[in-house]
Amino acid sequence: MNVLIVGSVALDYLETPFGVMERALGGSATFCSIAASYLTNSVRMVGIVGDDFPEEHVRFLSSRNIDVLGLERVAEGKTFSWGGKYHDDMNTRDTLYTELGVFEHFHPRIPDEWKQSEYVLLGNIHPSLQMEVLEQIEQPKLVLCDTMNLWIDIGLKELKHVLKRVDVLILNDEEARMLSKKRNLVAAAHALLRFGPKVVVIKKGEHGASMVTRDTYFTAPAFPLMQLKDPTGAGDSFAGGFIGWLARTNDVSTANMRKAVVYGSVLASFCVEEFSIDGIRSLSDEDVAERFITFRAITAF
Amino acid sequence: MNVLIVGSVALDYLETPFGVMERALGGSATFCSIAASYLTNSVRMVGIVGDDFPEEHVRFLSSRNIDVLGLERVAEGKTFSWGGKYHDDMNTRDTLYTELGVFEHFHPRIPDEWKQSEYVLLGNIHPSLQMEVLEQIEQPKLVLCDTMNLWIDIGLKELKHVLKRVDVLILNDEEARMLSKKRNLVAAAHALLRFGPKVVVIKKGEHGASMVTRDTYFTAPAFPLMQLKDPTGAGDSFAGGFIGWLARTNDVSTANMRKAVVYGSVLASFCVEEFSIDGIRSLSDEDVAERFITFRAITAF
Repeated sequence: MNVLIVGSVALDYLETPFGVMERALGGSATFCSIAASYLTNSVRMVGIVGDDFPEEHVRFLSSRNIDVLGLERVAEGKTFSWGGKYHDDMNTRDTLYTELGVFEHFHPRIPDEWKQSEYVLLGNIHPSLQMEVLEQIEQPKLVLCDTMNLWIDIGLKELKHVLKRVDVLILNDEEARMLSKKRNLVAAAHALLRFGPKVVVIKKGEHGASMVTRDTYFTAPAFPLMQLKDPTGAGDSFAGGFIGWLARTNDVSTANMRKAVVYGSVLASFCVEEFSIDGIRSLSDEDVAERFITFRAITAF
Repeated sequence: MNVLIVGSVALDYLETPFGVMERALGGSATFCSIAASYLTNSVRMVGIVGDDFPEEHVRFLSSRNIDVLGLERVAEGKTFSWGGKYHDDMNTRDTLYTELGVFEHFHPRIPDEWKQSEYVLLGNIHPSLQMEVLEQIEQPKLVLCDTMNLWIDIGLKELKHVLKRVDVLILNDEEARMLSKKRNLVAAAHALLRFGPKVVVIKKGEHGASMVTRDTYFTAPAFPLMQLKDPTGAGDSFAGGFIGWLARTNDVSTANMRKAVVYGSVLASFCVEEFSIDGIRSLSDEDVAERFITFRAITAF
C-alpha cells in the first residue's frame, strides 16, 4: 500500500556535544519518508524547498524509492532552516534560529493521482496545513498525525479540529501532558483519546513508547544505546517506521500496530546514532530485521 | 529457600494528594518482607522497633509467615519514624522529619540459626550496617543490595565496600546517575557493574525497570496505573518481590532474574495503589499471578 507523507523539508544547523553539522538534510517529511522507505517502496512525499536545495538530496530520496512528485521547488526561494543546539544531557535543546523561507507561504498541494492515497502521515507542521491535506484526500484507510509543543501553544484550536479526523496520534510525553493537562501518562493518553483518535502513541525517548486504545495498552522499550550522537529526527523516524509497517502489511489491527511501534522504535534508534539522516541513510533490510529481533530479546521473560 | 531481609521498620507520617496517614506501618524491611512473603513462605526479618510498636503489626507480619525472630524490641525506645509529603505529581516528595529513635544505635544481630541464610536482601539502610550483616552471614547463595541517594551522599566509601560483595544492586534512575556519574542509564548501569555487582537493576518509576549484566539487557514496563495513592515502599516492594521469586525457584540465572524483575514490578504496582502497606496487605496468589500475566500481555508483539 502507498503512504502519503506531508511535512517540512529543511537544511538544518545542528550542534551536539559530538560536533557540528551545517546545511544538514532535515525536516519532518524527510525523516518520516526515509524511515518509511525501509518498510514499503511506495512512499509519496509532499513538501517544499527553495532553489538552494541540493539536487543530490533529491537524487538520494529518489534512490530510496521515495516519489518526490509532491516536492514543490520554488525558484529564488530559500529552503526552511532550523538551527539547534543540544545540551550535554541530549534531552534538552535550544533553538538557535528558525528561518521559514519558502515554508512561510507553504500550502500543501496533493497531486491528483495521490488524492486516493491509503495511508496518510501528517508530519509535524502547523495543524491548519495538516487540515488542508486532509481536505484533499479521499477516504484514506488510516491517518496518522504527529505534532509538537509549538502547535499546542499557538495552534490548539486547529489541532483539535485535526484530531477529530485522525486515527492515530503520535506525540512525546511532555506534549501528551501539555495537551491533556494530565501528568500521569496513562491518564493523559485516555484524555487524548477523547479528542478523536482511536489510538494514541506516546514517545518517551530513552524510556520507549506506549500505545493506548480505549481498552488496550502496549509498551515497548527504547533500544539500549550507550550514546546518542544527534536526536534530531528521532520522532519523525518513529512515525515513518510505524506507518511504513502498517502500509507494508495493510493491517490496521491493534495487534499489528504493536509491531509498528517496534518498527518505529527500530528506525528511531538507528536515526540517533549519527548526525542528520546519516543513521538511516543506508541501512540494509537485515539491519532493520535484526534490530526488530533484538527488541524481542530484550523484552522476553 | 529462605530469604533474610534486613532494613528499617517504621511508623511513618504520610501525606499525599489523596490524604494523610499517621503512624503508618513502614520501613524498608517491612515492605520488602511483606512483598517477598507472596512468593516464598520462608522470610526472615531483621530490624528494630521501640516499645511503642503496636503488637498488631507483629501479629500481621507473623500471619504472612514472616519470621520475626530477628525483630529486636527495645524497652522504653521509640520506633523509627519518617514524615513525608508527596507533591501533586507524586514523583517528588519532601521529607518533613526523620526521628531515628531506636534506629540510631541499631546494629543488626543475625540470630545464629539464620547465619547460613541462602538469599540475603540488604534493605535500604546505611551501608556500614549492610556490611555488618554480610560479616555475620556464611556463604549466601545470593546477596541483593538496595540503596538510596542519602547513602551515596554520606556513606559513599562504605557503599563501595559493600558493592564489592554484592551480586545484585537495585537502585532507582536518579541514584544510578548519581553513583555512576553518567546520565545515560545504559552507560550508568555498565559503570555500576564495575563496582562489583554482577547484575544491576535500575528502577524507573512509571517507566518500569531495566536489568543489565555485562552482556545482557532486559527491560520491563511499569504496570499502567491511572492513579497512584502513595508511592512509599514501592522500591522496597520491588526488591522483596524480586528476591522472593529467586528464593522460591532457587534459580539465579539471568533468564530467571527477568521473571524476578516482573514479580518485583507486580508487587510494586500493588503497593502504590493504597497507603502504607495496605496495597500489599492481603493479596491472593491469584492477584499476583494475574498481574504477572498482564505484564506478558502488555509487552507482547
